[in-house]
Amino acid sequence: MVPHLVTALTGPINELEQRILDSTPAIERWFRLEWMEHTPPFYSAVDVRNAGFKLAPTNTDLFPSSWHNLTAEMLPLAVQAAMAAIEKICPEARNILLVPGNHNDNSFHLANLAQLKRIFHSAGLDVRIGSISPEINAPTEFAIPNSEPLVIEPVSAFKGRIGLKNFDPCMVLLNNDLSGGVPGILEELPTQYILPPLHAGWGTRRKSLHLQCYEDCAKRFGKLLGIDPWLINPIHGKVGEVNFREKHDTDLLASHVDALLSKVRRKYKEYGINEKPFVAIKSDIGAQGMGAVIVRDAKEIDQLPQRRAKDRLMGDRSSPEFVDKRSQARDLIVQEGVLTNERMNDLVAEPVVYMMDRYVVGGFYRVHAERRADESLNGPRSHYIPLAFARNHLPQSSNRPGGSAPNRFYMYGVVARLAMVAASYELEASDPDQEIYD
Amino acid sequence: MVPHLVTALTGPINELEQRILDSTPAIERWFRLEWMEHTPPFYSAVDVRNAGFKLAPTNTDLFPSSWHNLTAEMLPLAVQAAMAAIEKICPEARNILLVPGNHNDNSFHLANLAQLKRIFHSAGLDVRIGSISPEINAPTEFAIPNSEPLVIEPVSAFKGRIGLKNFDPCMVLLNNDLSGGVPGILEELPTQYILPPLHAGWGTRRKSLHLQCYEDCAKRFGKLLGIDPWLINPIHGKVGEVNFREKHDTDLLASHVDALLSKVRRKYKEYGINEKPFVAIKSDIGAQGMGAVIVRDAKEIDQLPQRRAKDRLMGDRSSPEFVDKRSQARDLIVQEGVLTNERMNDLVAEPVVYMMDRYVVGGFYRVHAERRADESLNGPRSHYIPLAFARNHLPQSSNRPGGSAPNRFYMYGVVARLAMVAASYELEASDPDQEIYD
Repeated sequence: MVPHLVTALTGPINELEQRILDSTPAIERWFRLEWMEHTPPFYSAVDVRNAGFKLAPTNTDLFPSSWHNLTAEMLPLAVQAAMAAIEKICPEARNILLVPGNHNDNSFHLANLAQLKRIFHSAGLDVRIGSISPEINAPTEFAIPNSEPLVIEPVSAFKGRIGLKNFDPCMVLLNNDLSGGVPGILEELPTQYILPPLHAGWGTRRKSLHLQCYEDCAKRFGKLLGIDPWLINPIHGKVGEVNFREKHDTDLLASHVDALLSKVRRKYKEYGINEKPFVAIKSDIGAQGMGAVIVRDAKEIDQLPQRRAKDRLMGDRSSPEFVDKRSQARDLIVQEGVLTNERMNDLVAEPVVYMMDRYVVGGFYRVHAERRADESLNGPRSHYIPLAFARNHLPQSSNRPGGSAPNRFYMYGVVARLAMVAASYELEASDPDQEIYD
Repeated sequence: MVPHLVTALTGPINELEQRILDSTPAIERWFRLEWMEHTPPFYSAVDVRNAGFKLAPTNTDLFPSSWHNLTAEMLPLAVQAAMAAIEKICPEARNILLVPGNHNDNSFHLANLAQLKRIFHSAGLDVRIGSISPEINAPTEFAIPNSEPLVIEPVSAFKGRIGLKNFDPCMVLLNNDLSGGVPGILEELPTQYILPPLHAGWGTRRKSLHLQCYEDCAKRFGKLLGIDPWLINPIHGKVGEVNFREKHDTDLLASHVDALLSKVRRKYKEYGINEKPFVAIKSDIGAQGMGAVIVRDAKEIDQLPQRRAKDRLMGDRSSPEFVDKRSQARDLIVQEGVLTNERMNDLVAEPVVYMMDRYVVGGFYRVHAERRADESLNGPRSHYIPLAFARNHLPQSSNRPGGSAPNRFYMYGVVARLAMVAASYELEASDPDQEIYD
């Protein structure tokens, strides 16, 4: 039932895999020590791109919303990890309130909520789903294929706590990425555990802070393994505010792109990589997740507005939006593009690793039939192929590097956890109450 | 690949299953609160017997030795649980020393050690195997099918610690049940974690203490669920010293058997159970695990020595040994016999649940081709059929009771964990340093 990897990758990635396998005890100990000092995000999902010569996380989602893509085999791991998380945070808890995003008409979203409900019920909590969307003003049933209907109820606030009718939760689990900002009803709830914390919302997060934290982690981890951290870390740069109507701003962006491409070219030369480097231009503000713009040359910057107009004309509505909102400056970053060399049934694929607390609990491949290896696969027509991470992410030292799916998945799990460590640093740095850490 | 349950059990066990499913959050919370106050055994394995009308643990092994019977699907759960255990006990650990039993010529035993090594390596420790057997006086390779050979090295003591050449472990994991008593080399190691503690060895454990602790747990758990604790608890009695040459002693044993049979008969009548009750006579001392003697009537006591002689004549060398060692009194207990109604391919079977720290991580069926439903299945010719507990032990509330293997396995996992809670109480009560708990 489980699709196999169809690419047999060779080259530097296999050396990295071998190094990671040889260092399993040291790596796991490194993570253990990190988690003594830092709090892992409650849950997370990390997109990983394997270029064959380097491996990098490209997105760290702190409100993962595709739990339904985890197979039945993976669920016990998720449940066990949820048990461990609950035990640390609130062992006496009876009730957990799950707060979803506001797209209740989306069947994937509903399947995801049903799966989260199943996980936390099995872990030993009474789970109910409470929406903060104005559309839900009474308990509403939503049909789910092959399952009982899902009931979503309106959240109400009472005496500095939130809950549902006859349901007072100890923990509030947000599965809503708060990209529209933090709704007032979620603020100032001193006697309930709100997880993840509100400042993990995309309205607050800055990609540049996450990337900086990841770079620091990758450097320390590279030292542990004796590897060039570039093998697991895409180079990035913070550009700042860019108004596409201002020549000064576009020149600044072009110079950032140029500098980044030079650095990447030097690395490619060092490793004898025969690929054309490319750069992803992204909004620094998490909430403005309108997709990355890919450029291969700084000269392309000036043509971006026209490119978008042409894309739109060709019917590609996913073409990034920020270049034509000319009235407004955007806070931008540039990031080294990482190819994905993974293929599933001939389609470009990238693994997504799901974590609960500090544990890798599953994963799947994101596949897009219409995208190339140098494009984002996250879009309206992407689909998902579950992978038996649960069975397969334990290292098997007897297999030759590159030849074993379990070893490949173990490596993906290591890099995903590194991004999770970075997220924990990021959340400490962005915590509005951070003085309590001192 | 996974065999299915061939019995569709009906009757009171299905009511119990339904009650347990309905109470999942309350049950899991109960366990969470228990583990706030008590320390789970490092690892454990519990034999469970399902009579169709009652369900009971019949053995709680604190040095489980059949880890090789866990399938590849179950390993990630075991690894994750091992990570959680290590993190609590000794997060900075690099090295773990695995101390096996002294039967290195046994291929099952070697496969078991290889599996434990795999689990703890994947959890992030350097694992080496150190024997305290006098037969191992230099590093010795043992061949393992489909795997690298296993190296077993002699343990040495140095400055109040034990280890191997160039290997100083932070944790010492015993997979040796110490039924021969505690070897001096394992005593007085104040700066290393010895797990399980030495007083968990069969040389120290008393079955009566475990059964008493289990009875207490079953009563409290029965109250939580609103059920008769007898449904999960076999009645037992402590007989004391019995010398089979003394009429006074055998009369005492007969009266215990008689009293126990009366109690069981009353329960059978209450529940309308049309079976003949039976009693298992066992040695109270764990180390004398020479098998239970089954009797259906107190009158059989006097014939036990002859029965054994006849069994031996018929070639059954597994017939319990204690009845003819007439020169010596034995400390005995009586325990309500629990039928097993589970069948695997027409053979009598009983589930064995494996746990690491507080988590159910897998299980299998023990099957014996030559034993009946009222006999012990643990013997020289028993064999094992792995069961996909990993996939299947999460409750599925939408299935009707009795019709779902996952729900059945969840129930087995609950009863096994109850025996694990009892073991934690037992180890507190038998701890020679127990004053530190006050």
